[in-house]
Order: sequence, then C-alpha cells, then structure tokens
Amino acid sequence: MKKIFFTPGPSQIFPTIPKHLKEALRKDILSLSHRSSRFKKIFYKTVDDLRQLLNIPKSHHIFFLSSGTEVMERVIENCVEKHSFHFVNGGFSQRFFETAIELKKVPFRHQVALGDGFDFDKVEINKKTELICVTQNETSTGVALDKKDIVLLKKNHPDKLLAVDIVSSAPYVNIDYSFADLVFFSVQKGFGLPAGLAVLIVSPEAIEKSKYLINKGVNVGSYHNFINLLKYADKGQTPETPNVLAIYLLGQVIKDMFKLGIRNIRKAIEKKANILYNFFEENNLYRPFIKQSRFRSKTVIVVEVKNGSSNIIKKLTNKGYIVGNGYQKFKDKQIRIANFPAHSLASVKQLLVYFKKYERQKNL
Amino acid sequence: MKKIFFTPGPSQIFPTIPKHLKEALRKDILSLSHRSSRFKKIFYKTVDDLRQLLNIPKSHHIFFLSSGTEVMERVIENCVEKHSFHFVNGGFSQRFFETAIELKKVPFRHQVALGDGFDFDKVEINKKTELICVTQNETSTGVALDKKDIVLLKKNHPDKLLAVDIVSSAPYVNIDYSFADLVFFSVQKGFGLPAGLAVLIVSPEAIEKSKYLINKGVNVGSYHNFINLLKYADKGQTPETPNVLAIYLLGQVIKDMFKLGIRNIRKAIEKKANILYNFFEENNLYRPFIKQSRFRSKTVIVVEVKNGSSNIIKKLTNKGYIVGNGYQKFKDKQIRIANFPAHSLASVKQLLVYFKKYERQKNL
Repeated sequence: MKKIFFTPGPSQIFPTIPKHLKEALRKDILSLSHRSSRFKKIFYKTVDDLRQLLNIPKSHHIFFLSSGTEVMERVIENCVEKHSFHFVNGGFSQRFFETAIELKKVPFRHQVALGDGFDFDKVEINKKTELICVTQNETSTGVALDKKDIVLLKKNHPDKLLAVDIVSSAPYVNIDYSFADLVFFSVQKGFGLPAGLAVLIVSPEAIEKSKYLINKGVNVGSYHNFINLLKYADKGQTPETPNVLAIYLLGQVIKDMFKLGIRNIRKAIEKKANILYNFFEENNLYRPFIKQSRFRSKTVIVVEVKNGSSNIIKKLTNKGYIVGNGYQKFKDKQIRIANFPAHSLASVKQLLVYFKKYERQKNL
Repeated sequence: MKKIFFTPGPSQIFPTIPKHLKEALRKDILSLSHRSSRFKKIFYKTVDDLRQLLNIPKSHHIFFLSSGTEVMERVIENCVEKHSFHFVNGGFSQRFFETAIELKKVPFRHQVALGDGFDFDKVEINKKTELICVTQNETSTGVALDKKDIVLLKKNHPDKLLAVDIVSSAPYVNIDYSFADLVFFSVQKGFGLPAGLAVLIVSPEAIEKSKYLINKGVNVGSYHNFINLLKYADKGQTPETPNVLAIYLLGQVIKDMFKLGIRNIRKAIEKKANILYNFFEENNLYRPFIKQSRFRSKTVIVVEVKNGSSNIIKKLTNKGYIVGNGYQKFKDKQIRIANFPAHSLASVKQLLVYFKKYERQKNL
C-alpha cells in the first residue's frame, strides 16, 4: 500500500525526490569527491539558492552539519564561555539546555508548562547571559513562537547572541535573519529529504564570538568549530566528508521550491493548518493541545484524543496514513501531524475523512 | 559516458546500490522514523551482520557516527583526559593528532616521513599516554600497517587504550578486535556507499574510560558521548536523527558481501593489488610511492608518475576512469588508486591498459 507520512520528521519526502535520486545516480553524485570542483559548484549553488529562498543576508554564513542535535552542540561550544539562557517548553528546548550542561557550561533556564509559549518581555534574562536560545517551533508539543517576538527579543538584548531553532518550521517560517545570530533546521522535515543533514546559518557576530573563545583558549570543538567550518565553506567545502547526496538533493528541492514559489508554499501550509485546526476544534473527540491559538504551530499540529490516541493511530496506519504519536509522556494521548510542503491539500483532506470516520464509529 | 571511480573515497559505489536505493524508496525508508520499531530492526540487524562480517566480539559495541573525522573527535573526547600518543605518517594520522590539540589535550607524536611505516617496538611511548592512535591505512600516502604489529603494540601496552583507523581498509583488513579498543571506518570507501556515515567499534575498556572521565567532570561531549551512544544503541537507536538511509544501505551491502563471502572479497582485493603493484614496478614511467613492500596498502595504491600526474589523470578521466590525485603537496606528482570490493578485476585490467597506452605515447 502507498503510504503517506505525516510524522513530524523523518516525514513525507518531497514528491520530486525519487526523480532526483535517479538523476543523482546517473550523474555519479554518489561517487563524487567532496574535494572536486564539481562538488564545489553544487555546494556554492545550494548555498546561494538557499540564501535566496529564505532571504538570508550576505553577511550570514551557511554551514552544513549532520543533525539538528549536532548543531545545538556546535552552537554552545562556539558561542558560550559560561552562560547560555534557554526558553524551555518541550523536549527539544530542554535538549538544547542539557547540551549546555553536558558541555560543562552553566546555563540558565526559563521553563513553562508543556504546550505553553512565552511572553519574552516578562522574563528577566540574567545579565551574564552570552547566548539566548529559543525553539521557534517546539516539535514535541506543537508550540510556535511569533517571529516578531523573536525580533523584539533580540532588539531588547542587542549585546547577546540569539539562537533560533527552526528545525521543524523551515522553510515555512520567514525569519528576519538580521535579528538572529544562529538559525538552524534539518532537512528531513520541511524540505522533505531523507535524514542526515542540518543547516546552520551564522551571523558575523557569532563567528567573532567563536574567534574570541579560541583566542582565550576555550575548547570550541575540532573539525566543526566555526572557524574550520568557515574556512572550508569559503572554498565550497566542508571540513569532513559530508553527506554529499543530501547536499545535492537539498539543492534540487530548493530549485523545485523556486518553481512553486515560496509565498505559495507558505500560503498552502497556512491553508492546510487552518483546515486541520478548525476540524479538531469542531469535533468532540479531538482537541488541539495548544490552547492559545497565537502559539499554535502551522507545521506541527498536536491534537489530544479523548480516551487515548493509540487506537486511531493504528486505524490510520492501516489506511496508509502514518501520523506521529505524542512526544514521550503524551505518547498514547496525543497525535502529532506534520504539515510540510510535501503534504498535499488532498492528502490532508483525506486524512480528515479518516479522522471523521473514526469519530463517527466512536459516537455510535 | 559510464564512469568508474577509482578515487580513494567517495569512490565507486557497490554494484547493488542502485537496486537497494530503488527498494529503499519502495519500502519508505526515506520517511522512516528513527524512533520506530522498523528502524530498530534495521539497526539491530545491521549491527549483528556487521559483527559477523568483521568478526567483532560480542564484548565490543558498535556506534554510528557521521564521518571518520567526527569519530576522531569523539574518541579523543571520550578516552583522553590529557595525553594521547599518535603515530603520524600522513594527512589523516596528522588530523587525529591535531584533533587532540584542538580539544585542549596534550598529545604526543612520533612522526616519520610521508610514505614510511613504523616499527612500533623501536618507539618509546610516554608512560603518561592514555590512548595510542594508529592509522592502519593512511589514505593520503598508501601506507598500511601490519595487523600483527598492531596486536603486538597492544600486547606491549596493555594498560593503554588503542585506537585503530581503518577508514579506507575495511572490510579488507581483518583486525583482531580483542587487541583494539576503538576501531573505525567510513562507508564511502570499502563498503561502496554514498558518503555520510561512519562506524565506530568500541571495547568495554573504552566505555569505562568515558564513564571515568564523566565522573571526574571532564567534558566528553554531549549527544555523542559514549554513554549516550551506548544508551541509544542498546535500544536500536542513535541519540540524534541519523542518516537512516545510509544505515539501511550498509545493512543491504553487508548482506551482499555475505553472499560473495568475505574471504573471496579479501582474496580478490589482494589479487588486484598484486596486479597493480606489479604493473607499476615494471613500467618505467610509474613507480609505487611506498618503497618497502611490507608497508604497501592493498586498498589505496599510490603511484608516482615521472614528469607529473596531471596529464595522465586527465587522459584517464576522458576515458571515464576517474583516479585520485596525490594528496596535498603530491597533488600533481602522484596518483591514488582505490582498490575496494566495488572495483571489478576487469575494470582494474582496463585501467592498466590505459596506463600502458599512455606510457607508450610518452616513450615515442
């Protein structure tokens, strides 16, 4: 049976991926040396196109790493001597915080309940803070923070670096990179690629911080410290042998996104999100987990199911519609539905037909 | 034109890769969640089969990382408080040494000329050494160290951990894992996969060392410290979202290798290596770079070309035969030829036909 993956990542692949894989084989991308001029062309083109797609200013550098989790480590290593500050409201913001602890830093944390967002201006940020970390889209709970609030956060703390996790909201979220120092996402979510690559966008100020720490004798990591990454990125390369195929595929999918138009892609996501949230609000068996609509993610929709989610998840799976279960303690209570560019409107509507059918059965 | 890649990695893909990619698409491997039970099955099966293929004892753990370069960092972080000792004879052994410096350790180094090997018993190893690092197969120069010498090295220093880089000799080299604590390779070389995955095999003593350092408050890294890697590997997972496709492909290629038989694969590599070395010894225009035949790698054959290598590399490229250039300062003087399981005897013979043709033209 043909399956459609609404899991929040790895997720449904972008519809053109099979074609691009075939082309990659034909063009020997799988054997391509990461030191060859052909690779450099692919690297530069992918970076340039990504810059255009996401409107990333020329001042910012673009690095390829292997996962969002790796990015958290590199960001802490390269931008924090002692103190980072973490807005924690779920599994991934907590992971960012714990990364800092594991790396022997002394992070601060402002924590709210799972499912809540933040009013940044009501939170006092310790003066010693070097780096503020926010998870713009918390994949574990489906909370999204407003990009305007993030701009204000930076404006109110211009002396501090700001890291923004958009792992599961890119390329939907339209970040203003002038007010962010470290922005990152992984490709197996909104870009519909197979897993194994992450992208980190870095401001000149963050690079300066890394240099400062190196000069001070702080351990900023080895091959993937920012200075090494920058040295290689400047010549269209990575320090290590990277996931060449994923970089190639990313470049191809970005081209496809140009054809569709990023505005249309974003509008389509909003339309699908509205349909999904409206449905779950209006149906008795389901309830959106995020109470305040201003915090509801457009790309990861989290739903509570009365009497538990396991049963309907199984039913949907039997129909070939694979949704995510709740995160950790919500495993059997919630459903997580990814709403990425790869998810067609028709597939979302069909998914809701199955949800409705299940509800009718329950109500009998 | 159909090309054949004799580059030392990324290199020629294993002949079954296109078939496995097609299957991966059909089986939705590209959308597979790294927390699903299906993924766990793939993880366990790949690890078990790799254990059988390479004869890795049950005592040793198998971890998936993203590159050989990453492995160097994790090994130093998790097994060295202050002092590692490095046998350096080329670009990658030097990289291992520099990794320790970048991570603020105080490494020792025994360095010989590029192209030379080591007589381990003639080298005094500082008593403070915690970890000895050897590059069994130096991809930059084509020097291979005898696996028996490596066993002796461990026997003579049983109190120290031993790391063995087999990045470009696996699965050819038949390591005795009872006498090695950290052995690693990346999949884009001898396994003929696309780049983006490395395998690290870890002894219980190395795990203990990591625990010891953690208890002592030493920074051993975050998500990829050995304790995290072990915690997840025990449940058939990785801490981060890994390169799921590469783990799947590795499992499939290992199955293919079972069918061929690892002994036959190793014999075939030796046969091709003999043909290559004999040819280059007997022909005036070429000369094997490694003088002492006991140090000549069977999997990365490095050849000096009189009057420079650029011209013949171009000619071979025009025929669709892609060989590697010399490493760094030898770029235009040498040729590096990978001899991996994916390289057929017929393709090696055809390559030598072109080499001979080029020599005849030069001699006219």
